[in-house]
Amino acid sequence: MYAVEVSDHIMIAHSFKGEVFGPAQALHGATFTVAVAFMSETLDQNGIVVDIGCAIDVLKATLKVVNYKNLDEIPQFNGVNTTTEWLTRWVFDQFAAAVKADKLGRAPREIFALRVTVGESPNARGWYEAPLW
Amino acid sequence: MYAVEVSDHIMIAHSFKGEVFGPAQALHGATFTVAVAFMSETLDQNGIVVDIGCAIDVLKATLKVVNYKNLDEIPQFNGVNTTTEWLTRWVFDQFAAAVKADKLGRAPREIFALRVTVGESPNARGWYEAPLW
Amino acid sequence: MYAVEVSDHIMIAHSFKGEVFGPAQALHGATFTVAVAFMSETLDQNGIVVDIGCAIDVLKATLKVVNYKNLDEIPQFNGVNTTTEWLTRWVFDQFAAAVKADKLGRAPREIFALRVTVGESPNARGWYEAPLW
Amino acid sequence: MYAVEVSDHIMIAHSFKGEVFGPAQALHGATFTVAVAFMSETLDQNGIVVDIGCAIDVLKATLKVVNYKNLDEIPQFNGVNTTTEWLTRWVFDQFAAAVKADKLGRAPREIFALRVTVGESPNARGWYEAPLW
Amino acid sequence: MYAVEVSDHIMIAHSFKGEVFGPAQALHGATFTVAVAFMSETLDQNGIVVDIGCAIDVLKATLKVVNYKNLDEIPQFNGVNTTTEWLTRWVFDQFAAAVKADKLGRAPREIFALRVTVGESPNARGWYEAPLW
Amino acid sequence: MYAVEVSDHIMIAHSFKGEVFGPAQALHGATFTVAVAFMSETLDQNGIVVDIGCAIDVLKATLKVVNYKNLDEIPQFNGVNTTTEWLTRWVFDQFAAAVKADKLGRAPREIFALRVTVGESPNARGWYEAPLW
Repeated sequence: MYAVEVSDHIMIAHSFKGEVFGPAQALHGATFTVAVAFMSETLDQNGIVVDIGCAIDVLKATLKVVNYKNLDEIPQFNGVNTTTEWLTRWVFDQFAAAVKADKLGRAPREIFALRVTVGESPNARGWYEAPLW
Repeated sequence: MYAVEVSDHIMIAHSFKGEVFGPAQALHGATFTVAVAFMSETLDQNGIVVDIGCAIDVLKATLKVVNYKNLDEIPQFNGVNTTTEWLTRWVFDQFAAAVKADKLGRAPREIFALRVTVGESPNARGWYEAPLW
Repeated sequence: MYAVEVSDHIMIAHSFKGEVFGPAQALHGATFTVAVAFMSETLDQNGIVVDIGCAIDVLKATLKVVNYKNLDEIPQFNGVNTTTEWLTRWVFDQFAAAVKADKLGRAPREIFALRVTVGESPNARGWYEAPLW
Repeated sequence: MYAVEVSDHIMIAHSFKGEVFGPAQALHGATFTVAVAFMSETLDQNGIVVDIGCAIDVLKATLKVVNYKNLDEIPQFNGVNTTTEWLTRWVFDQFAAAVKADKLGRAPREIFALRVTVGESPNARGWYEAPLW
Repeated sequence: MYAVEVSDHIMIAHSFKGEVFGPAQALHGATFTVAVAFMSETLDQNGIVVDIGCAIDVLKATLKVVNYKNLDEIPQFNGVNTTTEWLTRWVFDQFAAAVKADKLGRAPREIFALRVTVGESPNARGWYEAPLW
Repeated sequence: MYAVEVSDHIMIAHSFKGEVFGPAQALHGATFTVAVAFMSETLDQNGIVVDIGCAIDVLKATLKVVNYKNLDEIPQFNGVNTTTEWLTRWVFDQFAAAVKADKLGRAPREIFALRVTVGESPNARGWYEAPLW
């Protein structure tokens, strides 16, 4: 199995609802590093998994929706705790759609899975990995 | 599959028995970075895999047993080579017990696997990953 | 010249006033890594610059004031842009006072300077360095 | 499952054929970090996955073939795009042969899989992972 | 003294003339991380050293001249060994000119020095630091 | 001012005498990353500060004296606390001698200062910097 991963980062504010979050119930923020990995059983005729240029473009477009924002005020995130784990899935869903819309420069069915890793600090990170089909 | 990983470090002395270890047969030491990842198919109602605060507490309690120690003199490690690989498994076993004892703030059966990664230097690390059930 | 540096991190929200900040004028946030270095011409009789345990304690106490907070709502920061650069100086001032109050386990006059480094992302950081006397 | 991973780096020149590569069609270069992970279900009687000394030796010998070279001029790479992904597989193949030739200090059949990770920049990397048998 | 530093990277090919370079006399390449630090005694009225957006723009424009290139074929570099150290100075000179041309969003005379750091591998880097006036 | 820095690591055991060290009074250990920087006002005719190959050789020879050792049992370290800070100076002294013995491929007087940085964990490091003449 081959994989290629690209990464970027965002700087956001948010708060969490639930006693389990302790001091993180207050409005605070994070620099999140976000890495997206594409899995394929084969390389294409150019010797690549996906077009890295496309991957970076989709990543920038995806992150622009949340970068420099207070996630508590984004209507589509209303009522959810935008935890590190939840964000891995949100980014995954954007990329799953992008792959299926043929935006990665690779036949969609040839990318069989994605993994999205979000780092919140030097000591904590989360990821979501799932097949696409 | 969702995962959350927390990390910390320890500073220990030890020696190895066996010609395969070359100069590492002598008493030497290491700063080991230790990361523990929890895998779950779903997020709980708070949007998390485990309570990160609990995970950090269990990690600190686990590492306290070995931190600032000569592992050669810990009775329960008597007769074993406390290699990086062996330590990944030892930490795994402590966390497997902690999950089953419901110390991570998540229903034990909802955490299906763990991965423990131990880094010994910028150029070498090991990990142990296994299902819990 | 000898130096010892310890580091930790915080997760905060804030916003900036001024067109120069572009999208960062909106409420957003950051994971800031914070490192504090102590400079001395000599080691003490124990062979150290400062007591690292004390340094970590003062760092935790200093960062607790801002960690998991919206810096825009901290009264003492009223009317200032809490930029990365500004924070380096704020942390510096807390440590300058701590050194002079003899909280680092070293005769204050033997620590001649401090440097505080704050990282805001993988691609940007700031620092403030100055003599203490 | 246990794994041990060792890493090193190379500094090479190369160019790519295909419009998908944009500016990377020109002769350019890279510092590639190369990490090789060995997977085993068990530790041997010494408490290790493989002999790390052997692993480092095989890695150095493998990378020597390409280090400080223009990959476009290596006859055995003629006609291929030596992409990050392609290199992960080339290194994998060298190590698969080395394991089977019993050069890792571990019974070959006890190493069930390898993963080779190649980093090209702080923001992009690739890996190849496959069973050996 | 305040400093702010931004960083990026390039992927280039080059070769060196001189026996001291050993195998690096052959055409090879590097991923160079490039960080530029701006020093100032004071913050401006916005609480910043320079406009980070401007700093990133100048860095991108500077690196575009060399990124994805064979440095041996850049006419202005003719006859020089484009070593890591030499590159630190070349980038410094571009930024010294940019500061003096008032492209950093800060009164030129208020930036008293620059430091450019170029990393060539996990184990080696160089820097050039000098006053501007 | 130009600088070039090379780095490596060691894995050692040691203990400290003095209540200030708390649990580190017991025999423990560390993976120490060790970086040595050479400062010069000019580049030589090859465009370098020092011969990096020589620098790496001297670093390996220096570290071999302590690598995989219990520093408490090295006769020349008898009676000293081999703290991170103390080690920065010990390595500095070895390199100061090597520069003066013309082992770095550069006229000794053209290297005006050295800085040795020793990292003990992700959160703590020390350095020693001084002129050579």
